[in-house]
Amino acid sequence: MKHVHFSDVEGSPVEEGAEGVAFRMLIGPEDGAANFYMRNFEIAPGGHTPLHEHAWEHEVFVHSGSGRVNTASGPEPISAGDVVFVPGGQTHQFENTGSEPLQIICLVPAESG
Amino acid sequence: MKHVHFSDVEGSPVEEGAEGVAFRMLIGPEDGAANFYMRNFEIAPGGHTPLHEHAWEHEVFVHSGSGRVNTASGPEPISAGDVVFVPGGQTHQFENTGSEPLQIICLVPAESG
Repeated sequence: MKHVHFSDVEGSPVEEGAEGVAFRMLIGPEDGAANFYMRNFEIAPGGHTPLHEHAWEHEVFVHSGSGRVNTASGPEPISAGDVVFVPGGQTHQFENTGSEPLQIICLVPAESG
Repeated sequence: MKHVHFSDVEGSPVEEGAEGVAFRMLIGPEDGAANFYMRNFEIAPGGHTPLHEHAWEHEVFVHSGSGRVNTASGPEPISAGDVVFVPGGQTHQFENTGSEPLQIICLVPAESG
């Protein structure tokens, strides 16, 4: 069993198309996860993930902060406790419009990337 | 895209071996999720999930409250922000030892159950 506080996992900056975003792999292949991976994105105030789309899905849980998810049909406000399912092929971006870090858990299938 | 606050999803009681636990399917087969599912377990003070094991893994994120995860090697305290990976085949139980609801996100592969 692995047990860790998300903030104790070392983060690394997300580059292409992102601004003010730190990525943490919380449960991944190195832990023996075979089917799907749990990652955390910490988005600084004013920051955002890339606006993009890809073949695989996202299962997202917002655990702290507030902002919006931007999609082809416009933005939707998000805050702690929100759940977002982005099916494969849909354009999406997570943006921090608040004054504290926006923290989201984002899970992807192992065959992503 | 699906977007909902976790608490707006209707809960149902967990029976066998559990006490004071409400289950919510947040992202599941009805949403088109094909690879893995996101569920929420709300555990009342003094409550617990079943002490059990099964072939599939759990990827857990504690988003509110405090308690412990009980395993074959003993209990470990958990609180908001904690990540727990329970590989398939390992005995586990989540228990609320605090005074407010313990809320955990628990993901499983689609082929579970």
